[in-house]
Amino acid sequence: MNSLVETGLAQVQAPYSLQQLIEALSAALPAHCVLFREEDTRPYECDGLSLYRSLPAVVALPETEEQVQAIMRICKRLNTPIVARGAGTGLSGGAMPHSQGVLLGLSKFNRIKHIDLASATAIVEPGVRNLAISEAASPYGLYYAPDPSSQIACSIGGNVAENSGGVHCLKYGLTVHNVLRVRVVTIDGDVVELGSEAPDAPGLDLLSVFVGSEGMLGVVTEVTVKLIPKPACAQVVMASFSSVEAAGNAVTQVIAAGMIPAGLEMMDRRATHMVEPFVRAGYDMDAQAILLCESDGTPEEVAHEIARMEAVFREAGATRCQVSTSEAERLKFWAGRKNAFPAAGRVSPDYYCMDGTIPRRHLARVLGAIEQMEDEFGLRCANVFHAGDGNLHPLILFDSNKPDEVERAEKFGAAILELCVQVGGTVTGEHGVGMEKINQMCVQFSRDELDAFLAVKRAFDPPCLLNPEKVIPTLARCAEYGKMHVHAGELRFPDLARF
Amino acid sequence: MNSLVETGLAQVQAPYSLQQLIEALSAALPAHCVLFREEDTRPYECDGLSLYRSLPAVVALPETEEQVQAIMRICKRLNTPIVARGAGTGLSGGAMPHSQGVLLGLSKFNRIKHIDLASATAIVEPGVRNLAISEAASPYGLYYAPDPSSQIACSIGGNVAENSGGVHCLKYGLTVHNVLRVRVVTIDGDVVELGSEAPDAPGLDLLSVFVGSEGMLGVVTEVTVKLIPKPACAQVVMASFSSVEAAGNAVTQVIAAGMIPAGLEMMDRRATHMVEPFVRAGYDMDAQAILLCESDGTPEEVAHEIARMEAVFREAGATRCQVSTSEAERLKFWAGRKNAFPAAGRVSPDYYCMDGTIPRRHLARVLGAIEQMEDEFGLRCANVFHAGDGNLHPLILFDSNKPDEVERAEKFGAAILELCVQVGGTVTGEHGVGMEKINQMCVQFSRDELDAFLAVKRAFDPPCLLNPEKVIPTLARCAEYGKMHVHAGELRFPDLARF
Repeated sequence: MNSLVETGLAQVQAPYSLQQLIEALSAALPAHCVLFREEDTRPYECDGLSLYRSLPAVVALPETEEQVQAIMRICKRLNTPIVARGAGTGLSGGAMPHSQGVLLGLSKFNRIKHIDLASATAIVEPGVRNLAISEAASPYGLYYAPDPSSQIACSIGGNVAENSGGVHCLKYGLTVHNVLRVRVVTIDGDVVELGSEAPDAPGLDLLSVFVGSEGMLGVVTEVTVKLIPKPACAQVVMASFSSVEAAGNAVTQVIAAGMIPAGLEMMDRRATHMVEPFVRAGYDMDAQAILLCESDGTPEEVAHEIARMEAVFREAGATRCQVSTSEAERLKFWAGRKNAFPAAGRVSPDYYCMDGTIPRRHLARVLGAIEQMEDEFGLRCANVFHAGDGNLHPLILFDSNKPDEVERAEKFGAAILELCVQVGGTVTGEHGVGMEKINQMCVQFSRDELDAFLAVKRAFDPPCLLNPEKVIPTLARCAEYGKMHVHAGELRFPDLARF
Repeated sequence: MNSLVETGLAQVQAPYSLQQLIEALSAALPAHCVLFREEDTRPYECDGLSLYRSLPAVVALPETEEQVQAIMRICKRLNTPIVARGAGTGLSGGAMPHSQGVLLGLSKFNRIKHIDLASATAIVEPGVRNLAISEAASPYGLYYAPDPSSQIACSIGGNVAENSGGVHCLKYGLTVHNVLRVRVVTIDGDVVELGSEAPDAPGLDLLSVFVGSEGMLGVVTEVTVKLIPKPACAQVVMASFSSVEAAGNAVTQVIAAGMIPAGLEMMDRRATHMVEPFVRAGYDMDAQAILLCESDGTPEEVAHEIARMEAVFREAGATRCQVSTSEAERLKFWAGRKNAFPAAGRVSPDYYCMDGTIPRRHLARVLGAIEQMEDEFGLRCANVFHAGDGNLHPLILFDSNKPDEVERAEKFGAAILELCVQVGGTVTGEHGVGMEKINQMCVQFSRDELDAFLAVKRAFDPPCLLNPEKVIPTLARCAEYGKMHVHAGELRFPDLARF
């Protein structure tokens, strides 16, 4: 592969006048769809990763696919960056605006166009909220499975951009496994449909490459999703362990026994102690770690599987097992997990939610290393995560008003991600790379691999106007980042052997 | 997207002398790995689609990844087409050689390198047979789920190229859902790894675009696959129906009831009558269609699910239901399905196995249309297929020694595929596009969509040397094919309204 990284993504220049851009957009869109005064653009300056902020030159809020096509053509002609935005709940800065570009908001694409019962699918616009799809499908006994924590607010378009996960993704798959087709406007203003209702579409699987492409390939205007039958019942086992290691092994044992839980989450002692006084979920305050393990299906299936899960946990050394006896109790058990982030807000002025993935067998080792890093960086960290997937979400607690705590939190986060790579994992589980993890991409991938990403990016977007300076690091950036890490002539990463 | 189709894929010229190519390859590979005499290259002239044949200029059979890198670099330098080949069992001509190119056979990459029990994965070379993976994993109670009919012979590398399916794919997914990582040599001779062991890898999902890319993007040298626990038990319900329509509705009802059978296959009366005298599977000769529906899991789960399946079938009007009472009987029921192709060979000198996918709700209508086409084309057709996926495999029976029967079979096949597109389906379910369906790609996709495919193809392979003239039709080809179909100024496809 030719080294395309050298040519760089960060070279976007805007040789247009702002006036020209506003005029062109105003000619193509109704006046209320083009915002350019600072008081109007300010609300769009960041997404859920509020550490990074940037005011866009213009915010465009199209109402029709034709308007999206027009925006793309204008931006291509004027060589203007475009950053698409769903609900702005993303956690890696994927929707952070470009200061010289257009922030293309899809909030007005909020219609559920069709629910088809025979094929159990829904056709929706990208601005529809994740949970709204399940609500609309509910009267038919169906729902949309991927359930990010932000599902009450996040949009399906953003889910497609980030390939979002959630508690249920261990059993039911990520966004990519639950989306059948997308309609996409390319940088040229063309409309293409990727995917099909068939199990495998002819030609290259561009749907999968589009899902999780973080706004780099095109703008979605319509999404066809799979709906699945709501299970008749669900129960949770809550199991306590006297060490994180024992809990980690129990996770492996459940999977090895041939079960795929509907959810399998771990919280360490710091997390349960942070959450319990706030939520009163009934967590075991003596445990070093607890697991929440859900089974869903028919009542007979659930009873059978819950019994097997409990047996595996006891065999793996659980010090306590408690099975939810009612739907209310099941929801109470989950309430602590789901409210871990707000709970963090009660014990710390700020928190930084990381997202990395490791092979399950390294859970105990990596959690031990994170604990030692707390001393190194002088910050506390709670762990609440998708244990079944090996997807960690360390919550680094800090105070942005204290000198250098932001910087230490960022460094702590970077060290965790690089540790994930070192044990054979990856720098993101479900939040995407965005702005946040672009340096770690240099650690994760070889130069040839980054070149392959960039070549595909350019196949869709030759001028590199779509979400520039994110996700794929330039050669210069990696060289710069490498220099920071070089110590006595060698790359210096967190030394796992120390832990 | 720029119209890249115009520049064409079919323009590959070979401005080298054959002698030059042989010398370069012989310098890089041991003598026994480079074949160029006609008696040596003849066995490689076609794959499982023997209607199309072409002798390659040279056959290269590398033994190491470094040799694959060398072959790629030589071919790039000499502007020589490369067609990769696994076991040669493909049914769409994907491994048919280019007459001026190198046929790169991966049969010597036949080692199972590692089976990891903690992560339930296997690392294998691309020439390993599909079934050999399950055999090697069997002592540990694990297996590799996708099971194409050719699994005893086909290679995992070929499965990756075609995104192969099989009876179990309804429940366990296609190849793309069961492969975690591939090592790939690019046309430049670089080695890249795509995918990861995590649920979602950072950056673009190039693993998914690579799986099913039919040899157009690179050559695989190593594959990491998921292994899953062998179910403790399996049973089949065999249900008879008095019409294809009733059987089609029963398929929809099973899925709508929230069950995902381990296999859900349909055979029409012509197929059962063709197979039964040969296999003696015990099929109901009075039925217009039969369904084979499998449940697997623990004995309790299977007993419960089989009872629910039977209830759904009776409700849907099954005239007879029979549940396998032993493993021997289960295998007997499947034997007829699995031997349908050999059985066709007993009643007809030749047969042509088609592969298209339709929304399940149109099963009855499309099967009715195919029946009427039998008269139109003067050929018989039996239907044996993955009903749960809506993936049809019409078997067109013909005699290649009779004048024009080959041509009529091809036209019959093309008409079936275009009918699939017309009802909202696709021109391939699991066999790939290859040579065979390249014209139908013009029917399936818009110009902008074909351009998107080609742009991604070129991102990996700018000179378009990897499997040229396949999968993605040129603009000229589509124009030519369109002309054949134009009738009174309009595109003429099979008229569904007639049926």
